Amino acid sequence: MVGSVGNGLADLGASMNGNGKAAAEPLPMEMDPPADVMAAAAAAAAAEGEAASNGRREIVMGRNVHTSCFAVKEPDADDEETGEREATMASVLALYRRSLVERTKHHLGYPYNLDFDYGALGQLQHFSINNLGDPFIESNYGVHSRQFEVGVLDWFARLWDLEKDEYWGYITNCGTEGNLHGILVGREVFPDGILYASRESHYSVFKAARMYRMDCVKVDTLMSGEIDCADFQRKILQNRDKPAIINVNIGTTVKGAVDDLDLVIKTLEESGFKDRFYIHCDGALFGLMIPFVKKAPKVTFKKPIGSVSVSGHKFVGCPMPCGVQITRLKHINALSSNVEYLASRDATIMGSRNGHAPIFLWYTLNRKGYRGFQKEVQKCLRNAHYLKDCLKEAGIGAMLNELSSTVVFERPKDEEFVRRWQLACEGNIAHVVVMPSVNIDKLDYFLNELVEKRATWYKDGISKPPCIARDLGVENCLCGLHK
Amino acid sequence: MVGSVGNGLADLGASMNGNGKAAAEPLPMEMDPPADVMAAAAAAAAAEGEAASNGRREIVMGRNVHTSCFAVKEPDADDEETGEREATMASVLALYRRSLVERTKHHLGYPYNLDFDYGALGQLQHFSINNLGDPFIESNYGVHSRQFEVGVLDWFARLWDLEKDEYWGYITNCGTEGNLHGILVGREVFPDGILYASRESHYSVFKAARMYRMDCVKVDTLMSGEIDCADFQRKILQNRDKPAIINVNIGTTVKGAVDDLDLVIKTLEESGFKDRFYIHCDGALFGLMIPFVKKAPKVTFKKPIGSVSVSGHKFVGCPMPCGVQITRLKHINALSSNVEYLASRDATIMGSRNGHAPIFLWYTLNRKGYRGFQKEVQKCLRNAHYLKDCLKEAGIGAMLNELSSTVVFERPKDEEFVRRWQLACEGNIAHVVVMPSVNIDKLDYFLNELVEKRATWYKDGISKPPCIARDLGVENCLCGLHK
Repeated sequence: MVGSVGNGLADLGASMNGNGKAAAEPLPMEMDPPADVMAAAAAAAAAEGEAASNGRREIVMGRNVHTSCFAVKEPDADDEETGEREATMASVLALYRRSLVERTKHHLGYPYNLDFDYGALGQLQHFSINNLGDPFIESNYGVHSRQFEVGVLDWFARLWDLEKDEYWGYITNCGTEGNLHGILVGREVFPDGILYASRESHYSVFKAARMYRMDCVKVDTLMSGEIDCADFQRKILQNRDKPAIINVNIGTTVKGAVDDLDLVIKTLEESGFKDRFYIHCDGALFGLMIPFVKKAPKVTFKKPIGSVSVSGHKFVGCPMPCGVQITRLKHINALSSNVEYLASRDATIMGSRNGHAPIFLWYTLNRKGYRGFQKEVQKCLRNAHYLKDCLKEAGIGAMLNELSSTVVFERPKDEEFVRRWQLACEGNIAHVVVMPSVNIDKLDYFLNELVEKRATWYKDGISKPPCIARDLGVENCLCGLHK
Repeated sequence: MVGSVGNGLADLGASMNGNGKAAAEPLPMEMDPPADVMAAAAAAAAAEGEAASNGRREIVMGRNVHTSCFAVKEPDADDEETGEREATMASVLALYRRSLVERTKHHLGYPYNLDFDYGALGQLQHFSINNLGDPFIESNYGVHSRQFEVGVLDWFARLWDLEKDEYWGYITNCGTEGNLHGILVGREVFPDGILYASRESHYSVFKAARMYRMDCVKVDTLMSGEIDCADFQRKILQNRDKPAIINVNIGTTVKGAVDDLDLVIKTLEESGFKDRFYIHCDGALFGLMIPFVKKAPKVTFKKPIGSVSVSGHKFVGCPMPCGVQITRLKHINALSSNVEYLASRDATIMGSRNGHAPIFLWYTLNRKGYRGFQKEVQKCLRNAHYLKDCLKEAGIGAMLNELSSTVVFERPKDEEFVRRWQLACEGNIAHVVVMPSVNIDKLDYFLNELVEKRATWYKDGISKPPCIARDLGVENCLCGLHK
């Protein structure tokens, strides 16, 4: 089904190219080219150096995206009268919309809550809303939504125990921007600090180190995916003379592991780093869920942390990516006076900022409130347990961290199945992130299909399910050796 | 009128706070607190150090934004039944919408085309569209719009004369992201390069230098706002041993000045920098207009430039900020193989990326085409000339660069007038950016009001209009001394 919608779109794309040749070329079976194949090709190309890379990239770009893309075509002179152009565009959009419905229905792998209804905000799409600069200091551009933005920021500051006159923050474009900001604040507070992050941290953390020309030390992880504080201590002790800037994961990308914030702080203090560290908490997904998990350790500014970031399009759900960044006002004040470019009017990473995102967030926070989120978190955790239990009952190795709704399991053998369910994979493992839009029905649909297909993948008895003991531990592996 | 709408909103904000105290506090006369006052307070606070800054900032935050913001309130337990919460939210949104209409009508100072109709795309607001990662390599997340993104990128690459298999690019969140990316590419190509930028460059250029820990040299400007290539040569010759990374402005922020790209290249080559320079063109506004200006020098990859960025929400018009970044594929390939974090799947600054923005751009490019943009550019330039001529006829000093629709003139004395028309000001000058949404009627409305008010500002004969000879040159000043 996905394939047929995809082909329809690709055909339309080709016809919009106004290019019979493109339509005659073999089209991919699906709208999306196989990501894994391309990624592998790109990685291989990168490893082989530029010349080879050019050769490989050409294939990726020519065959897969440039051929199937919807080219922009110069309108004919009489388009206004015939209306043909508008009709073609409408049909492209209608088919695209249908593919989005299909894709949304079969989505399980990314931590996005796809269940939202912002119909009431449709009326605002006619305005160019831009919160350029600081949320608390208005620019002269009047078409903004700072009233909503500050309302949302106040809510988050309260959630993480920071007083109104002690915090600063803004609504970002995504989790990466939050990490870029948090780590930049850390570097400005400790210009010669070394960045420490577990090797299972989000790639944006290492990107930040490279961008900011900071020394960065990768710390080992436990089997759960949490930072290994014994290794952390060894590594900070090797750099006693330099302050420490630490990225703490409140839910890692792949395993949903929550780093032990209290142990990180204790390790720092016991190793002689008192007052010489800055902690940024990357709470992209779980930063907004953990406050509603009973008995979970608290992420709070009552502890000596410097900043917390969370994504808005993940647990809350939003048409486009966004995020929230909260830090201590004193750090921004220090920056404002120390740093020429960071006048108080420019303490964000970006310049112009999406003014619609704060309204989306404001709308959902107001409708659901703390109580609504609590219910949804509980539902997600319950459903995640259901999925993990069903997988194990079906003989499929799986793991679920206590503070997580990310179920990690044996990577399905068939890449078409992976793409169909949009699973995120790494080596021998895949994961499903149970969001509010993932209910039991959807999980059953997925489980039935997985069990059915899996029986065919391994029916010859020659190929076997992969061993995932190295990824998830012997106790979570159900391969021939470990079950 | 603006004031009354503003007060209505502020009242609602206070009532949503559920806090009688807030409503009893004196409310600002307008929805927006006076930006200049706050900016001045913040700047002063920054200069006076942290303690003082805390004191000042509290006033800014407490009185102005936190009081008038729309607080998020926990829903009552019976909200589902009474529907009261939803009704309150609907009324906040309706009043907010009204204020946006008002603000949009009186907007002149920022280079945003506010005239667009994306009604046909409303159907896509229900989807969480995310182009995370590289535009040319699909991730496993299926709800994306890469087909549109690549179509748009192809259009821009063609506009700037770069072949499909020789370019790389992506749709950014704003002009700042384009500059951050272009300068980062420059730094990765020449790790020990020095960044040169005219002092009238956008603040994001200097922010990039700070973020990336690059040496940065500010170059003087001519009266027009263009880079002074004599000063540029002096400065590069002082650093002969280090490669040069240059930000070239295709339209400066304040005066709309276009740096002389050919002269910059000639200066570099004559000073012995052949093959040891990287040029990023910041075309935020005018990068998309200059191709349609007759006799204008060309911004093209046939010249030795490395990257061009342009904003999408400016000349094109878009509900939220976005931009386009185009660079040479070989630079990204070099990065991909040299830089661990920049695998070909992560060559963007951000991680998750707004998938709606490419569709907005695709929609407008398809509807208007090169011909449509050409007509609009001509109209803007004509209207800008009209405004400049009318100002001068009315005895108001003004300047309009040949390659620009930004009219710079004597700063209006009354800050309320500045806020009402949302003019961008710097020192003694203000500007209006004539965009497609700014027609002759709007300009006449503005001109009449300005002339009328101005007569009252200076009627006592004691206070005089400011001299702007230092800002715009003697020939453009009409003060008592120079007229």
